[in-house]
Amino acid sequence: MSDPRLEIQMLHDRVMVAPVQGEGERRSSGGIVIPATAQPAKRLVWGEVFGTGQHVRSVSVGDRVLYAQDDHFEVDVTGRTYVVLRERDLHAVASETSEPTRSSSGTGLYL
Amino acid sequence: MSDPRLEIQMLHDRVMVAPVQGEGERRSSGGIVIPATAQPAKRLVWGEVFGTGQHVRSVSVGDRVLYAQDDHFEVDVTGRTYVVLRERDLHAVASETSEPTRSSSGTGLYL
Amino acid sequence: MSDPRLEIQMLHDRVMVAPVQGEGERRSSGGIVIPATAQPAKRLVWGEVFGTGQHVRSVSVGDRVLYAQDDHFEVDVTGRTYVVLRERDLHAVASETSEPTRSSSGTGLYL
Amino acid sequence: MSDPRLEIQMLHDRVMVAPVQGEGERRSSGGIVIPATAQPAKRLVWGEVFGTGQHVRSVSVGDRVLYAQDDHFEVDVTGRTYVVLRERDLHAVASETSEPTRSSSGTGLYL
Amino acid sequence: MSDPRLEIQMLHDRVMVAPVQGEGERRSSGGIVIPATAQPAKRLVWGEVFGTGQHVRSVSVGDRVLYAQDDHFEVDVTGRTYVVLRERDLHAVASETSEPTRSSSGTGLYL
Amino acid sequence: MSDPRLEIQMLHDRVMVAPVQGEGERRSSGGIVIPATAQPAKRLVWGEVFGTGQHVRSVSVGDRVLYAQDDHFEVDVTGRTYVVLRERDLHAVASETSEPTRSSSGTGLYL
Amino acid sequence: MSDPRLEIQMLHDRVMVAPVQGEGERRSSGGIVIPATAQPAKRLVWGEVFGTGQHVRSVSVGDRVLYAQDDHFEVDVTGRTYVVLRERDLHAVASETSEPTRSSSGTGLYL
Repeated sequence: MSDPRLEIQMLHDRVMVAPVQGEGERRSSGGIVIPATAQPAKRLVWGEVFGTGQHVRSVSVGDRVLYAQDDHFEVDVTGRTYVVLRERDLHAVASETSEPTRSSSGTGLYL
Repeated sequence: MSDPRLEIQMLHDRVMVAPVQGEGERRSSGGIVIPATAQPAKRLVWGEVFGTGQHVRSVSVGDRVLYAQDDHFEVDVTGRTYVVLRERDLHAVASETSEPTRSSSGTGLYL
Repeated sequence: MSDPRLEIQMLHDRVMVAPVQGEGERRSSGGIVIPATAQPAKRLVWGEVFGTGQHVRSVSVGDRVLYAQDDHFEVDVTGRTYVVLRERDLHAVASETSEPTRSSSGTGLYL
Repeated sequence: MSDPRLEIQMLHDRVMVAPVQGEGERRSSGGIVIPATAQPAKRLVWGEVFGTGQHVRSVSVGDRVLYAQDDHFEVDVTGRTYVVLRERDLHAVASETSEPTRSSSGTGLYL
Repeated sequence: MSDPRLEIQMLHDRVMVAPVQGEGERRSSGGIVIPATAQPAKRLVWGEVFGTGQHVRSVSVGDRVLYAQDDHFEVDVTGRTYVVLRERDLHAVASETSEPTRSSSGTGLYL
Repeated sequence: MSDPRLEIQMLHDRVMVAPVQGEGERRSSGGIVIPATAQPAKRLVWGEVFGTGQHVRSVSVGDRVLYAQDDHFEVDVTGRTYVVLRERDLHAVASETSEPTRSSSGTGLYL
Repeated sequence: MSDPRLEIQMLHDRVMVAPVQGEGERRSSGGIVIPATAQPAKRLVWGEVFGTGQHVRSVSVGDRVLYAQDDHFEVDVTGRTYVVLRERDLHAVASETSEPTRSSSGTGLYL
């Protein structure tokens, strides 16, 4: 029997997210990043979902989610830093859709 | 099959709003903006709704909404800054009506 | 068809009020305003209701309402400053009555 | 028809009270007021009820009520300063009773 | 008819207590009071109940009750200072019992 | 009839505890107490239950209970200092068991 | 009869955890620990469950759990320091699984 390994499962309403660098950043025509206007505490950034607790309903593994850049827990797992959030702290989700839709909660905006 | 694009959907009670510059500003006869009396933290401004989460009932995409100028999240999408609010933080909505009405919640005031 | 105009409707429990200058101020016999004793944060002033959200029950457009002079939102509409309050933050209402009544909630005091 | 006058009605759980000077103050045999021991923020004083909102159950117009000397709203009406409180912030009521009673909530103490 | 006197009735969950000096104080063999170790804000003292509001269930007039020495309201009535508390802020009650009992909530300790 | 004595009964969810000195302290081989690593505010200590209010379910008189060393009320009774806590503020209980058990909430650790 | 020993049982929603040193730490190829980026207050660390209160559902003795490095209670038992947490403050659990699974709450990441 292979040596039992400890798989990480999220609990309750927690969501584990890997920050996605550079998504949504503004760049000048020359490709230089234009710093966001909002103070850091009020800036939202994107990340990819790696795990969801048993109470999480609105997002799933592989989705991109929008969350506040500050004020969240972090954990290092096998050399990479992940962010740990609560479902209620997620503002939006970007999921794969081939044809542009304007469903009720769709913004018509794309990542 | 066209390359799958990630459409941004708002979650829960969130509303994505694009600030509308200059709406409601006071101008002198010469067109100079008269600064509002209220301290910034207490000033309300207008914006256009670009997306609403599945729990949002009272406003929809395209409406103008009234919200506090300070204390809200921001995100840059394709080079434009959007504000992310919760439905309960919206104070009023200005929707298109051709004839002046004084319904119960109508103020008889127009943007 | 006339150009559609955006009428402002209040949301939820919000009430839009236009401050009424000088109502309830104390004046010396010579007409000079005697500053109120209470610190500003604790002083109540009167205003006229211009709009009520769909959840508002206890006041209606045209009523005079009593609210705290500080700590409320403001918005400029067509050059005039309005106060935006929540119904629960209103302390009293002065409505038109021809004969003096002493109903249960009437104070027998008049604006 | 007589000119309609705006009678002030209290809302919700609000109670309008006129402070009663000197009630409960300690005086030396020579009649000099002995300052209360408690810091102001913790001192209770008496006032007469002038109006009650529709949700108020435990006191009525004319009763004397006991409330905290600090931390309440004030409004000037026809040259007199009234205090505006919430029912839950009232500690005791002194109502007229001819024979000394020791009902369950009576203290056997008199104003 | 005798002149109507205003008897003080407690409201809601309020309890009126007269502090009892010296109860529970530690004294050296020579009778000198040994100051309590706890900071004042954390020290509990005893008092006698003089009145209870209509919602009070667990104590009655004449009982001794244990309450925090700091952070409570006070009122002077006929030259004596009383403390006004909420039932939930009372920690223990000492009521008359002739034989030592160890009922479930009895501590076997006596005042 | 013997003179009625005032037995102290705990109220509501309150628990009266007598601190137990030295329980759980770390000592070097030479018996010297090794100060705990946690800041005082975060350190838990043991005490013996002397009384419980009528709403207390999970502990009884004679049990050892684990509580935060700081931030609790104290009272002196017959020359001894007792701590007064709320049931919800107790973290663990050590009750007498002759055979080592590993029930669901047992830690297999002993005082 | 063997001398009764006091076994420690956790109460309510409390979980007793023994911190596991070094789990999840980032090391350079040379084995040197790379300090985590997050400020301490926002860093999550792993520990082993030693006991759970009767209301705890989602973890059991022997599991590894993820919790915030700061802001928790500590107790020394038989010379070892344990952390005492509430179930709701646990973010993830790593339990033994022989084959890699990607159940809904599994992250596919391993300790």
